[in-house]
Amino acid sequence: MGEFEYIAWLRQQARREPARVDPRVLVGIGDDTAVLHPPAHPLLVTTDMLLEGSHFVLSEAGPRRVGRKALAVNLSDIAAMAGKPLAAVVSVGLPRGAGESLATELYQGLREMADAFDTALVGGDTNTWTGGLVISVTLLGEATSRGAVRRAGAKPGDWLLVTGPLGGSIRARHLDFTPRVREALALHAHTDLHAMIDISDGLAADVGHICEESACGVVLRADAIPISDAARQMADTRTPLEHALSDGEDFELVFAVSPGDGRRLLETQPVPGVTLVHIGEFTSRKEMVLDEAGKRTPLSPRGYVHQL
Amino acid sequence: MGEFEYIAWLRQQARREPARVDPRVLVGIGDDTAVLHPPAHPLLVTTDMLLEGSHFVLSEAGPRRVGRKALAVNLSDIAAMAGKPLAAVVSVGLPRGAGESLATELYQGLREMADAFDTALVGGDTNTWTGGLVISVTLLGEATSRGAVRRAGAKPGDWLLVTGPLGGSIRARHLDFTPRVREALALHAHTDLHAMIDISDGLAADVGHICEESACGVVLRADAIPISDAARQMADTRTPLEHALSDGEDFELVFAVSPGDGRRLLETQPVPGVTLVHIGEFTSRKEMVLDEAGKRTPLSPRGYVHQL
Repeated sequence: MGEFEYIAWLRQQARREPARVDPRVLVGIGDDTAVLHPPAHPLLVTTDMLLEGSHFVLSEAGPRRVGRKALAVNLSDIAAMAGKPLAAVVSVGLPRGAGESLATELYQGLREMADAFDTALVGGDTNTWTGGLVISVTLLGEATSRGAVRRAGAKPGDWLLVTGPLGGSIRARHLDFTPRVREALALHAHTDLHAMIDISDGLAADVGHICEESACGVVLRADAIPISDAARQMADTRTPLEHALSDGEDFELVFAVSPGDGRRLLETQPVPGVTLVHIGEFTSRKEMVLDEAGKRTPLSPRGYVHQL
Repeated sequence: MGEFEYIAWLRQQARREPARVDPRVLVGIGDDTAVLHPPAHPLLVTTDMLLEGSHFVLSEAGPRRVGRKALAVNLSDIAAMAGKPLAAVVSVGLPRGAGESLATELYQGLREMADAFDTALVGGDTNTWTGGLVISVTLLGEATSRGAVRRAGAKPGDWLLVTGPLGGSIRARHLDFTPRVREALALHAHTDLHAMIDISDGLAADVGHICEESACGVVLRADAIPISDAARQMADTRTPLEHALSDGEDFELVFAVSPGDGRRLLETQPVPGVTLVHIGEFTSRKEMVLDEAGKRTPLSPRGYVHQL
């Protein structure tokens, strides 16, 4: 199967079901560009690239889960802005000679995730090369009428809440997580979200991003941070708390709300399937602090950073 | 320089000049997604990935020209729809240990091309890995009030015109071409373009795409096809005409118009910097034919096809 046969196959997949005739899409796969109706609200744009050996081990994950993850990490970014997904384009570099099952299974994973989150797959670029598998997805979304929630906007005194337990994602979750798109929309509909981010670099690193953009600091309470079973089962030199603070790719949401709204959210727990947890407060001092049973130590962002 | 320092550097570049405060952009680099004002007309979306060793030889091209090409190939797709560029996101996989000059020079090439075509660089994803250089750009554009020009729409009897000489792009042009964005807009403003494509796979292959989408055939006149100096200078077993027919990455535009419009375009040559050339006619028989001094032979799309 050559590039054009693959594109023909992709188009066939897209046409197979009447439900895939998407009212948002004027022109889908198979022209020089896709053409979409302009959205009513501001347009969200995000992109993420997954590289074999760096973001996944192909022999362990399998192509379907790689395709799934490639779209899911982008959906998580749309969730972090409390937006609705619209449409995605996908470019891939396939190892030459890997065979067509790699391409078709990759697509199945993308398709499943796209269907689950009402995302139109509208185009892409298929290549082969002598290197490892590379997949890059760009996802477009639309802000709701309440606007996009940014990293900037947290205020001293605000509470910091998180949508789920953290750490140890490498054991499986980084491939199989469900992006918090629905949860973000539900939160945004109920609450004045001051700032939000999805945890991709690690809790400390990502809360650090909110602090930097919001020009404030934070105190995280160690005993409040929800630690995943996976983090507790990691058998290495780091404690479960350290995993929860520094492991990347949890893809939970962490957000800032007023103390009043925070209290109400904890009492009513309005988001189905999620238990919101209060893990700290923002401060006016521009530093990050970890409070362990009253003992306060400086906290540095410890997420994984790609060194150039 | 780590990933976050690179992002900070990118943001600094974007902020350095007041002209870069772009009225189309609500949120640029540095949040979970970019946020753009919704366009008034339909939104165009295209993506292309360049892979080291497949689309460029890094030691020959240098990173600046790779960055330039990565955006230019996408601009060419927007041109093929006769659209206006809006904003791009860029994801890269950098060879680990290559040093920061690779990242910064890549950015310079992207920046130059973005500035030349009024394109906002609004986000991206920076990674390192053990593989070769990969760069994937997604470009958003906007259709004009006259609508996007598709591959479908050519009619039997229509003339086929091309914007410039073809073949031998591998000698330099594939890295240094100027995407035909302005030319496409000028044509679209003057003329009822029935169908259009940019020549990325090769003249025969790309005219084949128009034929397939338009459900018609074509006769290409061999002596009318403009052949580039580079194609004439290729020293291999293929003739200059074969290069002009089959070489990829010329990035000229080929389009269908009524004979009346075609005649007028040839007489008035209304597009600055470009000589439009009439190279054939569309037919109702669904086949591609090459006419060499009256001798007609079937023509197969011979562009380079990535084998999976």
